Amino acid sequence: MNFKEKLLEAAPRGIGLCVGLDPVLDKMPPRFQRGDQPLLDFCAGIVAATSDLASAYKPNLAFFEAYGWSGWRQLEQLIRLIPRDKIVIADAKRGDIGNTAAAYAQAIFDILGADAVTVHPWLGTDSLEPFLKNPDHGAFILAVTSNPSGRELQELSAEGEPMFQHVIKMAKRLSVKGNVGLVAGATRPELWPQILDCAEFLPILAPGIGAQGGDLEALKKAAQGYPAPMLVNASRSILYASSGDDYQEAAHCEAQNLINQLRA
Amino acid sequence: MNFKEKLLEAAPRGIGLCVGLDPVLDKMPPRFQRGDQPLLDFCAGIVAATSDLASAYKPNLAFFEAYGWSGWRQLEQLIRLIPRDKIVIADAKRGDIGNTAAAYAQAIFDILGADAVTVHPWLGTDSLEPFLKNPDHGAFILAVTSNPSGRELQELSAEGEPMFQHVIKMAKRLSVKGNVGLVAGATRPELWPQILDCAEFLPILAPGIGAQGGDLEALKKAAQGYPAPMLVNASRSILYASSGDDYQEAAHCEAQNLINQLRA
Repeated sequence: MNFKEKLLEAAPRGIGLCVGLDPVLDKMPPRFQRGDQPLLDFCAGIVAATSDLASAYKPNLAFFEAYGWSGWRQLEQLIRLIPRDKIVIADAKRGDIGNTAAAYAQAIFDILGADAVTVHPWLGTDSLEPFLKNPDHGAFILAVTSNPSGRELQELSAEGEPMFQHVIKMAKRLSVKGNVGLVAGATRPELWPQILDCAEFLPILAPGIGAQGGDLEALKKAAQGYPAPMLVNASRSILYASSGDDYQEAAHCEAQNLINQLRA
Repeated sequence: MNFKEKLLEAAPRGIGLCVGLDPVLDKMPPRFQRGDQPLLDFCAGIVAATSDLASAYKPNLAFFEAYGWSGWRQLEQLIRLIPRDKIVIADAKRGDIGNTAAAYAQAIFDILGADAVTVHPWLGTDSLEPFLKNPDHGAFILAVTSNPSGRELQELSAEGEPMFQHVIKMAKRLSVKGNVGLVAGATRPELWPQILDCAEFLPILAPGIGAQGGDLEALKKAAQGYPAPMLVNASRSILYASSGDDYQEAAHCEAQNLINQLRA
């Protein structure tokens, strides 16, 4: 099954929950902090507790790399535990020249076994193509990000339209195999009508719900009738719903609440 | 010694050679391909052969990540072998929201032990600040890259000036501790006068010399009288000067040629 088909199956009603895996030792239940593979064990517990609800998982590479090679090894093992019908998005935010991008694609798709990756548009078309060669793999291009400073460059007006719109058009041109999506932060709801109008048929990954305070209702309203799948991501609000031994129940409950809001 | 001072010492005449470490198994002498830590052993040989000439080393994380956790472990070990007076630039091209950027900074400075990192400007100020908190560490922000598609976004005209100029101004604002530099590709020599005029006092990392065909003479001409250090990077042309057992001699010879051209 190629990436486009897998995404449609994973988010059957058009909108799906993506659980971000950003493991931070200090925030985990204390018992993990004494183990020798805390990132793996904690995240495996989150996956087990939410896999009846999640369409996708988005491990954020930074939080594994912060533990060096051991973190990378735990990430490789973690991805193998995620059920195959889920979309695994390596939140790596890579972006480099062609031959380097090809090495990153090898790391992310062949070594980690992710289905998709998040990528920077700043280096342009030839930096993105290596991630898109194989229709079984996808890339979500950073159009509008959820952080406060995102607007500094992304919303500058360039030759008649905001920079993010240039990026969306680049993404559409690159989507020959239907395997290109966009990252569009839920914290910029006023931009959503414009983003989706331009995106037309591109799948969307929307971070910023939960800890970052994104506006879920505005996002849902803008997304009504949008023809491509949308993955709404929450990380910290689910992972750290409890720092006690009931963290799995708390994560499930938080994920369920989000699903209910998404479907209401 | 903070980053600014260390950089000035490492490139005493204002211009210095940076050797990019992009290890690719197929291109190495065959004896490495049979070993169990080929990336480490090959790159250690390059470092030993060029450390009398290089001001800086720039390991490119992609080529280590392409071998998963083992690649990361070899990278951690490699950086420990690099003499302390050299600038180690982790060519990671990271760029993410604040709390994630802080985790990347931990990975790159605390775990890998690099002095500096390359970063994407696309997410703006708050995505860059976590790399700049400690004056012992620096960041080179991607202003103009060496790949053909770089110009697609970087040279768009936005509110009266090219996008890369907005990035250079952002870099100057961020350089409160003197630890911000720019990446400016040697393959765009016609832009160099404008780049350096705007950069004023920012150190420059110039990739694209060697295999990518950058114009060293144009770069030298533009850089005359520029007051901040400039690191000229070559990777493939040095690493793979020979694929035989004389690869160290060949790398030294190629590095010496480049130094001679830089100083002529």
